[in-house]
Amino acid sequence: MRNFEYYTPTRILFGKDTHLQTGALLKEQGCRKVLIHYGSESAVRSGLLDEIRANLTEAGIDFVTLGGVVPNPRLSLVRQGIELCRKEQVDFILAVGGGSVIDSCKAIGYGTANPWTDVWNFFLKTETPKACIPVGVILTIAASGSEMSNSCVITNEDGWLKRGCIKSDLCRPRFAILNPRLTYTLPQYQTESGCVDILMHTMERYFVNTETMEITDSISESLMQTVIYNARILMKEPGNYNARAEIMWAGSLSHNGLTGCGTAGGDWACHQLEHELGGLFDVAHGAGLAAVWGSWARYVYQENPERFAQFATNVFDIPCYTDFEKTALAGIEAMEDFFRSIEMPTSLSELGLSLTDEQIHELAFKCSFEDTRTIGTIRQLTMKDMEKIYLMAR
Amino acid sequence: MRNFEYYTPTRILFGKDTHLQTGALLKEQGCRKVLIHYGSESAVRSGLLDEIRANLTEAGIDFVTLGGVVPNPRLSLVRQGIELCRKEQVDFILAVGGGSVIDSCKAIGYGTANPWTDVWNFFLKTETPKACIPVGVILTIAASGSEMSNSCVITNEDGWLKRGCIKSDLCRPRFAILNPRLTYTLPQYQTESGCVDILMHTMERYFVNTETMEITDSISESLMQTVIYNARILMKEPGNYNARAEIMWAGSLSHNGLTGCGTAGGDWACHQLEHELGGLFDVAHGAGLAAVWGSWARYVYQENPERFAQFATNVFDIPCYTDFEKTALAGIEAMEDFFRSIEMPTSLSELGLSLTDEQIHELAFKCSFEDTRTIGTIRQLTMKDMEKIYLMAR
Repeated sequence: MRNFEYYTPTRILFGKDTHLQTGALLKEQGCRKVLIHYGSESAVRSGLLDEIRANLTEAGIDFVTLGGVVPNPRLSLVRQGIELCRKEQVDFILAVGGGSVIDSCKAIGYGTANPWTDVWNFFLKTETPKACIPVGVILTIAASGSEMSNSCVITNEDGWLKRGCIKSDLCRPRFAILNPRLTYTLPQYQTESGCVDILMHTMERYFVNTETMEITDSISESLMQTVIYNARILMKEPGNYNARAEIMWAGSLSHNGLTGCGTAGGDWACHQLEHELGGLFDVAHGAGLAAVWGSWARYVYQENPERFAQFATNVFDIPCYTDFEKTALAGIEAMEDFFRSIEMPTSLSELGLSLTDEQIHELAFKCSFEDTRTIGTIRQLTMKDMEKIYLMAR
Repeated sequence: MRNFEYYTPTRILFGKDTHLQTGALLKEQGCRKVLIHYGSESAVRSGLLDEIRANLTEAGIDFVTLGGVVPNPRLSLVRQGIELCRKEQVDFILAVGGGSVIDSCKAIGYGTANPWTDVWNFFLKTETPKACIPVGVILTIAASGSEMSNSCVITNEDGWLKRGCIKSDLCRPRFAILNPRLTYTLPQYQTESGCVDILMHTMERYFVNTETMEITDSISESLMQTVIYNARILMKEPGNYNARAEIMWAGSLSHNGLTGCGTAGGDWACHQLEHELGGLFDVAHGAGLAAVWGSWARYVYQENPERFAQFATNVFDIPCYTDFEKTALAGIEAMEDFFRSIEMPTSLSELGLSLTDEQIHELAFKCSFEDTRTIGTIRQLTMKDMEKIYLMAR
């Protein structure tokens, strides 16, 4: 069993009408001027932004706003945000949205608080941030877990590179408001894509080659079962409050570190494989993960068939055959069946991409940082391995 | 499903040799002078205190020490600690021990930081603390969960009143070092008593009459199964690192709020019933809880037999009969069987107490604050109910 560190200082307010406590929370944080950062106009149309503005005004808190965050959030908007924060002397950044908005906020926070270097260096990992403007979250999409995490991912349009920042507690949100009702208006595809993302944050930590902790394993398996069960409910009943709530809380727990305690960091190869898809083709993150996961799993499961068999048995109630490999494969199939049942892709073509051999080669070339790194831990994948997995997933 | 708040800012360092990071952690916290607070001489004899002193000296951190904390920690020592902290201008309190030591530290922290009133008022709940000297923990007993919790319990020798402080985030430890090896030397009775305490922190939150969250339920059930399984292992193999680790991490997760998300606060009647035993007779907390739980459960289960049946089925794999009451009772029996298997009492006489009717009446009188309050939520218990449960448990 590996040593681990666990640190989740984000204050969670969960439930109906909790977003109306934003002003009070910001006051508690002692902030003077807030940047309200958001994505599409849906936050405007739904009236949510107006509610928040009124709430802040009532609490006597000054603010500026910046919208326009897109999925796979862009570095150019981050730069705009940094400029705005400096000009307006913003001391707190409030994300109103999902993972893209939160990540954009974290990047703006880093850029504003570290004027001594360019923010993209933190994503190239050539520099380490020393500070970050505090971030708070009003979550409207259950998916990324960024509301409690120490990471963020930004896409640089110059070369369409999607890169994760150096992980640091500096960017962990001070608070996150989780009102399941704010996710009702999300299109079904986004909702279900979010469910895959949530599952994958636990699965990336779960599929390892090292000894794990029983308690972490069974919490992870519980979480996966909860997400699978409720993701299916939301296909038929998008307005089911309880199902939305289960998914939303699972989203935060899946990426706050809890499901990784004692699992020595996890694998994360699928996330890396998807990042290149997201950077080049702007696919929904969860859908991209669903499209590559089965191929990745079939490529690597023989490194630890017992682990994949445990997954099959404890998450999908598949009888554990004497033959671990058979059980493992049944579990992989069950997960793909689940993806299909919530209309998520299990291949790149189902994701809407028909890629040439050259394009697949380019994906692997970029994912391996031009053949200079491997990804994954259950099996270390070279550029050649990545290319094979993309081909299997085609 | 009820709204909830979740806030667990304590940084956890888990695993072998983690206590050697104490100096570095204290430096990070910017502290200048630490009170090292501990209990029995076992921390001295084992060499742990010497290791910590050396570690702090190496980090250039000044310290004073105060030992002598006993189970059901006393107000008189708290007062001594407050005086020492004021005299020595201590700005950080380091607990080296289990729940009693941590709670004593929290109370000293409150008393030192609030010179405007007497510290016992926070336990009488007539005053609210405004600040607390920061507390850090090196845990040597897995049981109380106080290392991540917002509560503390102190016994006032004047009247032998055992009372919990007003719950406040102010006293949540800044960090907790969880090295399972530091629990090896604990007597078996203490180890198993700790396992009951851990179980009960989840069970108190689990047995409610309100709608709950699936994800919280299944995390709670996972945690209970992990503790039951590993508590049995530790009966035979007290030096089993993995079993110690599972129990230790379960102890923190059981009382940091995770197993209460969406369960509207929980019941806590058993804790109140045990507090009077602990205050008057100085019994081990977990053993006291084991001694009353079965009687409490039989007294209240008809208020929500479905919930007790779910417990029976999901924690003890008892087939769910059509008759919920039958299933519920089988679950209560299974838990008592488990208590017996780890040599924990299931009655007050097994706990070593042979009480007269007058003594039982006195317990109920004190537990009901002289017949002025009820306890519990699954069924609100009056003084008469408390008396009946104590009698059933006799």
